[in-house]
Amino acid sequence: MNDRALYVGRFQPYHLGHHSVVKTIASEVDEIVIGIGSAQLSHEINDPFTGGERYLMISSSLKMEGISNYFIVPIIDIHRNAVWVSHVESLIPPVDVVYTNSDLIERLFKEKSYDVRKPPLYDRHKYAGTEVRRRIVSGERWKELIPEAAVRVICEIDGPNRMRHITGV
Amino acid sequence: MNDRALYVGRFQPYHLGHHSVVKTIASEVDEIVIGIGSAQLSHEINDPFTGGERYLMISSSLKMEGISNYFIVPIIDIHRNAVWVSHVESLIPPVDVVYTNSDLIERLFKEKSYDVRKPPLYDRHKYAGTEVRRRIVSGERWKELIPEAAVRVICEIDGPNRMRHITGV
Amino acid sequence: MNDRALYVGRFQPYHLGHHSVVKTIASEVDEIVIGIGSAQLSHEINDPFTGGERYLMISSSLKMEGISNYFIVPIIDIHRNAVWVSHVESLIPPVDVVYTNSDLIERLFKEKSYDVRKPPLYDRHKYAGTEVRRRIVSGERWKELIPEAAVRVICEIDGPNRMRHITGV
Amino acid sequence: MNDRALYVGRFQPYHLGHHSVVKTIASEVDEIVIGIGSAQLSHEINDPFTGGERYLMISSSLKMEGISNYFIVPIIDIHRNAVWVSHVESLIPPVDVVYTNSDLIERLFKEKSYDVRKPPLYDRHKYAGTEVRRRIVSGERWKELIPEAAVRVICEIDGPNRMRHITGV
Amino acid sequence: MNDRALYVGRFQPYHLGHHSVVKTIASEVDEIVIGIGSAQLSHEINDPFTGGERYLMISSSLKMEGISNYFIVPIIDIHRNAVWVSHVESLIPPVDVVYTNSDLIERLFKEKSYDVRKPPLYDRHKYAGTEVRRRIVSGERWKELIPEAAVRVICEIDGPNRMRHITGV
Amino acid sequence: MNDRALYVGRFQPYHLGHHSVVKTIASEVDEIVIGIGSAQLSHEINDPFTGGERYLMISSSLKMEGISNYFIVPIIDIHRNAVWVSHVESLIPPVDVVYTNSDLIERLFKEKSYDVRKPPLYDRHKYAGTEVRRRIVSGERWKELIPEAAVRVICEIDGPNRMRHITGV
Repeated sequence: MNDRALYVGRFQPYHLGHHSVVKTIASEVDEIVIGIGSAQLSHEINDPFTGGERYLMISSSLKMEGISNYFIVPIIDIHRNAVWVSHVESLIPPVDVVYTNSDLIERLFKEKSYDVRKPPLYDRHKYAGTEVRRRIVSGERWKELIPEAAVRVICEIDGPNRMRHITGV
Repeated sequence: MNDRALYVGRFQPYHLGHHSVVKTIASEVDEIVIGIGSAQLSHEINDPFTGGERYLMISSSLKMEGISNYFIVPIIDIHRNAVWVSHVESLIPPVDVVYTNSDLIERLFKEKSYDVRKPPLYDRHKYAGTEVRRRIVSGERWKELIPEAAVRVICEIDGPNRMRHITGV
Repeated sequence: MNDRALYVGRFQPYHLGHHSVVKTIASEVDEIVIGIGSAQLSHEINDPFTGGERYLMISSSLKMEGISNYFIVPIIDIHRNAVWVSHVESLIPPVDVVYTNSDLIERLFKEKSYDVRKPPLYDRHKYAGTEVRRRIVSGERWKELIPEAAVRVICEIDGPNRMRHITGV
Repeated sequence: MNDRALYVGRFQPYHLGHHSVVKTIASEVDEIVIGIGSAQLSHEINDPFTGGERYLMISSSLKMEGISNYFIVPIIDIHRNAVWVSHVESLIPPVDVVYTNSDLIERLFKEKSYDVRKPPLYDRHKYAGTEVRRRIVSGERWKELIPEAAVRVICEIDGPNRMRHITGV
Repeated sequence: MNDRALYVGRFQPYHLGHHSVVKTIASEVDEIVIGIGSAQLSHEINDPFTGGERYLMISSSLKMEGISNYFIVPIIDIHRNAVWVSHVESLIPPVDVVYTNSDLIERLFKEKSYDVRKPPLYDRHKYAGTEVRRRIVSGERWKELIPEAAVRVICEIDGPNRMRHITGV
Repeated sequence: MNDRALYVGRFQPYHLGHHSVVKTIASEVDEIVIGIGSAQLSHEINDPFTGGERYLMISSSLKMEGISNYFIVPIIDIHRNAVWVSHVESLIPPVDVVYTNSDLIERLFKEKSYDVRKPPLYDRHKYAGTEVRRRIVSGERWKELIPEAAVRVICEIDGPNRMRHITGV
């Protein structure tokens, strides 16, 4: 079997921090599985984009880089931590290692004897979903934080207006 | 926006009939979205493989053909036909046309004003999930009905034994 | 509190048998609560119409009769018999008596100490959901089995074509 | 088809603000569909009444006014915004226009190309669910904020004691 | 950690075949975990008793034997085979070995590397849930197939009448 | 029927306060049913332990005391207060009285005409789940708040490390 790694995030939206992590992992393993967490959520202040929209942001950005050794898998929440790893396992190709910044996800995979690692470093203060969403809603400069192809997806779906609308701005 | 088509199936397993459909559609549109239906099912006589295993069968087979303009999206059942199209829409990139052999899926998308088409022809008697599963369980020749890369996935996960086991053979 | 009765059915579709029952009960009690069972189902051979479409069939038929002492409540399945009565109680105004032809529903309400009665008689062979659906799909005369206002609803939503479509006829 | 409007709220409880909106809309369109949101919730501080109790508050209040061109539909949450409009559509008769004060509901229906309007004005500070619930729990004057028939429903079900009980007062 | 074994069944109802298996296992291991499968089902022809009623049948029968080294755990279905073992693991104390006659359950635990064994033999033709239910409904002699304490539970809850009622006999 | 009492808690973890309540009730009634609420939750800051782990804490502690007249029943949340009592009733043996400190649970059972009582007194400030969890995470003395057998369970499953891990400490 190949050397395959899992990287899970909510990607609300997919930003340059995520992008640098994915590019690094993709260059180090045979294949990377990108799990889109909370795939069922959208139109919420902290979760504005649908699973399909986030899928498109990620895949367009990777295609622009000429990267093709990836799987993208939307993962719907099941609200039961003790069963979550098994839920993920049933939806993805088998993996040898898991990359995550989440303490909870790290713990859940470690209790199932997975090799869990911290993703490569990036400026987590600047490239953070919270910061990107804040800038989009408030009308500040946000496009520089996001891969160009993902910016295009966000604009095509009228993302900034949706976000301001549901925020009541 | 690009010209994008959706093709939905259960792919239990992914066979040469599916494969010829996907190749034809992929050559005619900019991008094909392959929806894996009933993604939550596995270890049942008519649904032996997990969503992740099916994902791997499809993507390995397409990579062997050098095809890369596809999205694969596992779709968990929601058991509510009237809401199903909306459920699918929330998980996939937007599409312009839908290919399906299912009367129900055709109807559901038509009622939402989609352009629904019959997939290109293939020998549906020979290349059918039911026939493939029957052969695997009974120990007849089955590898000739399935793309080589998908055969490899099925064998790596000990698929034939699993199928015989749950069938009580 | 008033004298209120519950009558539960799937109403796929609402036919003259249901209609005569509702009219009789409505004339005998202060208020009748009509529960639309399996409200989440639609586009299936035995459950072609949505909860909303069935709601409209019933209310239009009752308005044509000048009847107004009714409540209509769509009830989604929960697949747990032991909890079902409580589920219904939480969605409807309180009732004193329950009318049903279903042995299961009769048992469930009796175990909760309800007064359960058989609905007034009608020709259950002729006025049966199964028979009505069979006629619509096969193109036989069906409009004489259904209240005029409900016929209009079924035609407006292109019901016969939907039913033939999903049946593969 | 008639000219039909949807108005969605949680109605915890149904107060004179809601009532004036419903009366105005009911006088302007052929039929009004009143959707009871979060119908599955009850016995919570912000959601004290069951779907059935709220149904009864609304229908009794409208009958007192001699209004009869309405549909009342309890709507259970599905916790997926992208699918919610489709969920509502499957439970109600088709509508041409949607009235709502909620930014989120406005956005969701607009993305599905609905004509969404602001409900007619009323004093939203005084007639607010939060204010009514606060007064009931603290024992202040609350009956003047609610239609007389709805007051009767709340008292019959021992509402004020239930609210104080679950609040721990 | 102790030597602990899991034995899963639906126990509709708990009969002498189950009882002999439980007694044998209980005498061979430190502790036996008895999982009540499909705990949410009841009032169906093949699943007449609630999880609580089955719990009581089992525990009363074991107490009569002076057996006390057991755990009883109702397990609600999740309809996802690939996740089911993990679901069970989250509800029970950890076990070293699994006893089951079900091919599916055997397969699911084996794929998670459990030691799975066939339960000790008993006359599976005579002591079978299907046969017991058939006899109860048809009024034949059934009490000799069931532990005395479980017979008492079935009679106290008016079980035979419930079963005949929902069967339409 | 016997004299049976229900006592419901989340038991995160099972501490000496719970233990004294259970011992007192168990000495006063024929049988005590201990319902483990929110049984599906685990690996959360306020809900660190699985249903199975909590089951084991309780039963080991009771066995150490020589108590055997108890039932332990994990109860998964259904997020619908109006249906919750019925949900519990379907999973447990029938009870005559309910002991709880929760205002909500007291109200829900009272509305179903149950005899609800306050549990016997204990020092609720010292013996509180919140306090125990705080001490475990911060490394303070916690073993004196918990029955010895439950301490052993928590240590065997590496509980303190899990709690610190998911808390990000």
